[in-house]
Amino acid sequence: MPSYTPPLRDMRFILHEVLRIEQQPVPGYADLTADFTGAILEEAGKIAAELLAPLNPVGDREGCRLENGVVRTPTGFRDAFDQLRAGGWTGLDCAEEWGGQGLPYVMGTAVGEMLVSANMAFMMYPGLTHGAYSAINAHGTEAQKKTWLPKLVSCEWTGTMNLTEPHCGTDLGLLRTRAEPQPDGSFRITGQKIFISSGEHDMAENIVHLVLARLPDAPPGVKGISLFIVPKFLVNPDGSIGARNSLSCGKLEEKMGIHGNSTCVMNYDGAVGYMLGEPNKGLRAMFTMMNEARIGVGLQGLAQASVAYQNALAYAKERLQGRDVTGPRNPDGPADPIIVHPDIRRSLMDQKSFVEGARLFALWGATLIDAGHRAGDAGAQGLIALLTPVIKAFLTDKGFEMCVAAQQVFGGHGYIEEWGMSQFVRDARIAMIYEGANGIQALDLVGRKLAAEGGKPLMGFFETIKGFIKAHGAREGLKADFLDPLKQASKDLQDATMYFMAEGMKNPHNALAGSTDYLHLFGHVCLGYAWARMAVVAEDALAAGGSDREFYEAKLATGRYYMARCLPETGLRLARIRAGAAPVMALDAASF
Amino acid sequence: MPSYTPPLRDMRFILHEVLRIEQQPVPGYADLTADFTGAILEEAGKIAAELLAPLNPVGDREGCRLENGVVRTPTGFRDAFDQLRAGGWTGLDCAEEWGGQGLPYVMGTAVGEMLVSANMAFMMYPGLTHGAYSAINAHGTEAQKKTWLPKLVSCEWTGTMNLTEPHCGTDLGLLRTRAEPQPDGSFRITGQKIFISSGEHDMAENIVHLVLARLPDAPPGVKGISLFIVPKFLVNPDGSIGARNSLSCGKLEEKMGIHGNSTCVMNYDGAVGYMLGEPNKGLRAMFTMMNEARIGVGLQGLAQASVAYQNALAYAKERLQGRDVTGPRNPDGPADPIIVHPDIRRSLMDQKSFVEGARLFALWGATLIDAGHRAGDAGAQGLIALLTPVIKAFLTDKGFEMCVAAQQVFGGHGYIEEWGMSQFVRDARIAMIYEGANGIQALDLVGRKLAAEGGKPLMGFFETIKGFIKAHGAREGLKADFLDPLKQASKDLQDATMYFMAEGMKNPHNALAGSTDYLHLFGHVCLGYAWARMAVVAEDALAAGGSDREFYEAKLATGRYYMARCLPETGLRLARIRAGAAPVMALDAASF
Repeated sequence: MPSYTPPLRDMRFILHEVLRIEQQPVPGYADLTADFTGAILEEAGKIAAELLAPLNPVGDREGCRLENGVVRTPTGFRDAFDQLRAGGWTGLDCAEEWGGQGLPYVMGTAVGEMLVSANMAFMMYPGLTHGAYSAINAHGTEAQKKTWLPKLVSCEWTGTMNLTEPHCGTDLGLLRTRAEPQPDGSFRITGQKIFISSGEHDMAENIVHLVLARLPDAPPGVKGISLFIVPKFLVNPDGSIGARNSLSCGKLEEKMGIHGNSTCVMNYDGAVGYMLGEPNKGLRAMFTMMNEARIGVGLQGLAQASVAYQNALAYAKERLQGRDVTGPRNPDGPADPIIVHPDIRRSLMDQKSFVEGARLFALWGATLIDAGHRAGDAGAQGLIALLTPVIKAFLTDKGFEMCVAAQQVFGGHGYIEEWGMSQFVRDARIAMIYEGANGIQALDLVGRKLAAEGGKPLMGFFETIKGFIKAHGAREGLKADFLDPLKQASKDLQDATMYFMAEGMKNPHNALAGSTDYLHLFGHVCLGYAWARMAVVAEDALAAGGSDREFYEAKLATGRYYMARCLPETGLRLARIRAGAAPVMALDAASF
Repeated sequence: MPSYTPPLRDMRFILHEVLRIEQQPVPGYADLTADFTGAILEEAGKIAAELLAPLNPVGDREGCRLENGVVRTPTGFRDAFDQLRAGGWTGLDCAEEWGGQGLPYVMGTAVGEMLVSANMAFMMYPGLTHGAYSAINAHGTEAQKKTWLPKLVSCEWTGTMNLTEPHCGTDLGLLRTRAEPQPDGSFRITGQKIFISSGEHDMAENIVHLVLARLPDAPPGVKGISLFIVPKFLVNPDGSIGARNSLSCGKLEEKMGIHGNSTCVMNYDGAVGYMLGEPNKGLRAMFTMMNEARIGVGLQGLAQASVAYQNALAYAKERLQGRDVTGPRNPDGPADPIIVHPDIRRSLMDQKSFVEGARLFALWGATLIDAGHRAGDAGAQGLIALLTPVIKAFLTDKGFEMCVAAQQVFGGHGYIEEWGMSQFVRDARIAMIYEGANGIQALDLVGRKLAAEGGKPLMGFFETIKGFIKAHGAREGLKADFLDPLKQASKDLQDATMYFMAEGMKNPHNALAGSTDYLHLFGHVCLGYAWARMAVVAEDALAAGGSDREFYEAKLATGRYYMARCLPETGLRLARIRAGAAPVMALDAASF
């Protein structure tokens, strides 16, 4: 069975040595001392490693079962959820007003990575609940907040997002679910939703569905969609559980992975619902939830890569097979551990350099969200809006790739379910698809985010990198290995942007044909920037002397690997982008 | 449920217009007219599409069950196997002397691709039998051939390869299974083998295991391994089935995919075996089987990508979602088919250009095998030895990647088992692992094949490409789109080779750290060469007028896509190779 070791040292490094969160001018950050965050992360790490990780293969093996309309979750899930609730972990970064701990989002992100590494399918139950909390918190009336938020924060009730219908996923303008206004101000919701994660289960006394539907007089397309709160059980005026609402889980999907999470077909048969936010502006309200969910999904890519890498590393150190071509490293054993072989080492370095770079990227993103929400920093808000599709798609594409690489280290054993590596691959696969498939993220980035605010966030991003390179230009030890490659990668991204501006004007297909390449180019620049930042801190720490030299030297070595072997992909991406729409669109659809 | 359409037109194009097999000076090829091969391929295509493809999801869902030592294969497998046997398909390219059809290997390859597209797990039963046939045909005594070959050719009996043990896969020098000589010249085999595909099942009256084991006086390591024929049932002198041998299936593995194939733990408890080939030279004999198996595995990568692509294409033409950004293409419908979107088109072109290029690469490789075996062409033998690891690893790495891409086109539906795309991904995954994990293929390529025969095959490969470019240098229409990119890619491969020669001498890690990159670089050059060859033929066909213009124009468009967007990866691979061992090996194993 795979194991999980919380990356506590690395998180401390990122939070307190690189990001120096406690010094940032964000309300709530001053309290985030290394002692304080260390205590929280240590405790969360225990829950991850000891409570959730052992249940991960159980969830995969048993899956969920639908019996007479009731979904049974895997053995142990309910008990674990109770422990999570009892510890207050579900409301870590929710408002104290509604029973949360009131910690910044960055802490939720750091804790979240570990819990999701341990058990992704399980963490989707509280994860979606958090999304429902955020949507109601942002768009609900005071009365709605009072009714729903405390129970969602505590996870006594869980939440869901209901967007997809059989004939529409990405193109929500096509959705058909209807909402009929009632004299009492409520609505009757009728329609079928599919792919509803955590849609029905036996771990909470109520489930709060957020459902997109159309009012009778709604205009067609996305401008006629409203959002509704549709609970499994109605809630009495005193807050107690009332009558069963007329909605049900019609089917559980058989999926490639995340078996521990119930993926439901949900049928709404005139179910009572309450409008959240304004009529016909439901998509905007849902996007409050979606943007948060997208960063959460990016985190899933990182989290699965992290735990898969840990296990691949352990296996590579233990498995004896062959000899180092330059001479035995384990002369007393029958063979050397496979970590001596350069191709295995290459794969492990790919994984390690991705995981550690992505961790800083994700946590940096979380501080931007905090700066926006807590400090009203408009620049940070613009920047995280730009980076959200990159975090979602780059971290999940690469996260999946790294899980496959980690599985490969196990050879044939990687393909056998018993070893657990297959589950990481199968679970990670969904993150590339849901909350907007990665191609949609690329479209969002190129078609919407680049030009947002007249390009200000993008220009700000380039300025940030330029400023960083300039600020550290005197560091001779980092120039060739870190600063020059970052400069080149950033230039590739600028050149790609220029190409889109020039050629996309002539034909938008010229930009869209290169959108996925652009997103990956962008992701590499972000990770290159992350590694350069870590290198600066590591170099300073080594110069200052002190303990932990091995940690900082490993950081520099891992960063050098990323810059030398991974970052040059930006050149290839740029070349593809510059090939434009012609080769992509030359073939008529009928001629395929 | 996914469907499968045999790519008959494409096979005819490759076999008869590009390779022009009927004109090649290889015994047996003169009979391979387009009419003759067309009839065979059409019939095989029917079996693939109508008999085997419908059983593919059945095999995945039901899997195999071990009951009291007997393995039950999925519903319908036995009947399908009977039909395959009755049609003589199992011995298509086996010698007529032993009951085969005596056709060249290239025909077995073309037929094999289709059958494996339809049902990979099923085809492993006859596939491994073919491997056993080849090994006994190459190394057996006349008496052994008479006993075993006719039944293996007809697949009345099936075959297996027994290499791996719990503590050794790649490093066969560590294997422990023992072979005790008996007074009658036979041996008693004792030990445990794992990951034995088709190791036990209910579809044949006997199973012929080829087992690697050590003689009592064998030297340690790989030079002390012998190969044995160990049948499930002993065979009486008259050829009838005799006593049950003392071997058994101890366990079936639960795997990520290929559920329809029984992956067995095999226990040999003093089982009667017969030496195949010479004492202590078993590895060499097994490699007869392994080399053929590796090409067969490469074909699996292509085959799964081919069927996954077909289904992604059909879905992309049907699924209505969003509008072409340049204007509606399906104005009367609620939305446009997703194939209008450039990012979907990009993905489909990635898949299409890989599948069609890989098909020529694989069939060209098959003609080299025929030229070696049937015409004694030493140059062809050297070249296919060089290309075997590339065919195995490049086609399976990319084949898996393309299955993932095809799955992605389906969005959420791709993740649901019911749609069948998950199975293609899960099945294709094993091909990167078995018959020598792809890292081992890269090691074989760089550590052994490059320097084989003093580098003659490699130089011959470069000369072939140089000669091709020169021969077609006057074709202005192909220069910029095909010939120049091929020249550049080939130069990248030469530069990488030079780097290995110069730096690998100083430190072999410099070559091994770049081995996987080198293999992929090589694979791209092979596919670039394949596309350039197809472009020449397509250009000529268009110039000659005649029908089928759309087919040839599509070939040119698809080829241009590959050259413009896929082939430039060679530059990135070269850059990584030139980074050398330093970044890969800098971190001490203990510092990870």
